[in-house]
Amino acid sequence: MTNYKLVIEYDGTKYFGWQIQRDRRTIQQEIEKHLSKVLNSKIKINASGRTDAGVHALGQVASFKSSTIIKPPVIKRALNSQLDKDIRIKSVTKVPDSFHARISAKKKTYRYQISLIDPSVFERLYYAFVPYKVDLALMRKEAKDLLGSHDFRGFEGSGRRSKNATRVISKVSLIKKGNKVIFTITGNGFLYNMVRNIVGTLIDIGRGKFPQGTIKKLIKEKDRSKGGPTAKACGVVLVGVKY
Amino acid sequence: MTNYKLVIEYDGTKYFGWQIQRDRRTIQQEIEKHLSKVLNSKIKINASGRTDAGVHALGQVASFKSSTIIKPPVIKRALNSQLDKDIRIKSVTKVPDSFHARISAKKKTYRYQISLIDPSVFERLYYAFVPYKVDLALMRKEAKDLLGSHDFRGFEGSGRRSKNATRVISKVSLIKKGNKVIFTITGNGFLYNMVRNIVGTLIDIGRGKFPQGTIKKLIKEKDRSKGGPTAKACGVVLVGVKY
Repeated sequence: MTNYKLVIEYDGTKYFGWQIQRDRRTIQQEIEKHLSKVLNSKIKINASGRTDAGVHALGQVASFKSSTIIKPPVIKRALNSQLDKDIRIKSVTKVPDSFHARISAKKKTYRYQISLIDPSVFERLYYAFVPYKVDLALMRKEAKDLLGSHDFRGFEGSGRRSKNATRVISKVSLIKKGNKVIFTITGNGFLYNMVRNIVGTLIDIGRGKFPQGTIKKLIKEKDRSKGGPTAKACGVVLVGVKY
Repeated sequence: MTNYKLVIEYDGTKYFGWQIQRDRRTIQQEIEKHLSKVLNSKIKINASGRTDAGVHALGQVASFKSSTIIKPPVIKRALNSQLDKDIRIKSVTKVPDSFHARISAKKKTYRYQISLIDPSVFERLYYAFVPYKVDLALMRKEAKDLLGSHDFRGFEGSGRRSKNATRVISKVSLIKKGNKVIFTITGNGFLYNMVRNIVGTLIDIGRGKFPQGTIKKLIKEKDRSKGGPTAKACGVVLVGVKY
């Protein structure tokens, strides 16, 4: 058996997230279904992590094992010709047996896309509309408090609970381009809904609902109920995974 | 009866163009259906012009007459709450009786969106992929030959034939931003498929399939068969209409 790595781009709008679910269309299911057809045997793929319903990806990574003799570029072409156009396989490569898309992941980068004006019909599926005047300098300052190794329990969604909530955030930025604001965050891992809960909280800080120091306080007190709402899924893009 | 003007934005991906057709979903049909419900009487709307299946708009304009007492901002809100999110009413305003969205139009601006790399899943519905190396300086130079008053029969699609093919083009530009090229054209009117036929020809000039002087030649010879292919509909955006 050879180990393979897939880099995947998707528009998550029409899917119930990454993970296979009964009676619901998910990205994993679509890829496994077509990959199994292409390779003529039942294939199971492992992703770097799940993404929620409506969340997008420019660089999701998954791995699978197969004893096929079909060459990687041919697998890629065959898969792309079968998949709906909102899922695109960017690359298929052979990797060492030890590679596992989730376990081997060293860093992940997410982006959160905000529009300060009602987004056009072309952007509505990829930008969350924030109809408030926000203080971006303050949000940027607060976001810096996420950097480093912290217990992020205060930003974990209630759906799933990790045993260990400590994660290392190595990079954050908040960039304004016209009426768009792009928040980018890189870390060694993220808790369930962590990116969306961070963004929801930063927006509430930016609009003056929470005072300066809120991020620090949430990290310290580990109390999710004191944070902002979970920002909409459509603004989230999994940009890439480093190994 | 009062005369009303609508400014409309749409993602044309899922529609068979603007004009009502039997058994097919069109933008006009969707808007008329919901407008008739909102105003509780059968409403017919006139657009500045038809758009083809898959073509988008940021500023399509339509007009209609009604004796409703409902205020324009309320009509706008009610319509937007009924319509699918890929059609958005940007404004509803009262206009003089003499206003007609098509007849009164003075200038129209179209944009054609090209991606020089395989567009991401987020851009695939709004950019046409041009997988060739193109000489943008040459395309820009050729595009300038469209300026002025000309008989554009050589760029008219075969589906419909206008009696008079003379149109005045007042502005053209070709702007490169990263891997995107945006072609913008303003004129007093456009023939059927004219924008897509111009773009298809400009691309063929840019990739060296046609020599310099081709635009001038096509205007002179009025022979559509000597031009490039009709560029894909998904790259076309009706940007706005001036009155």
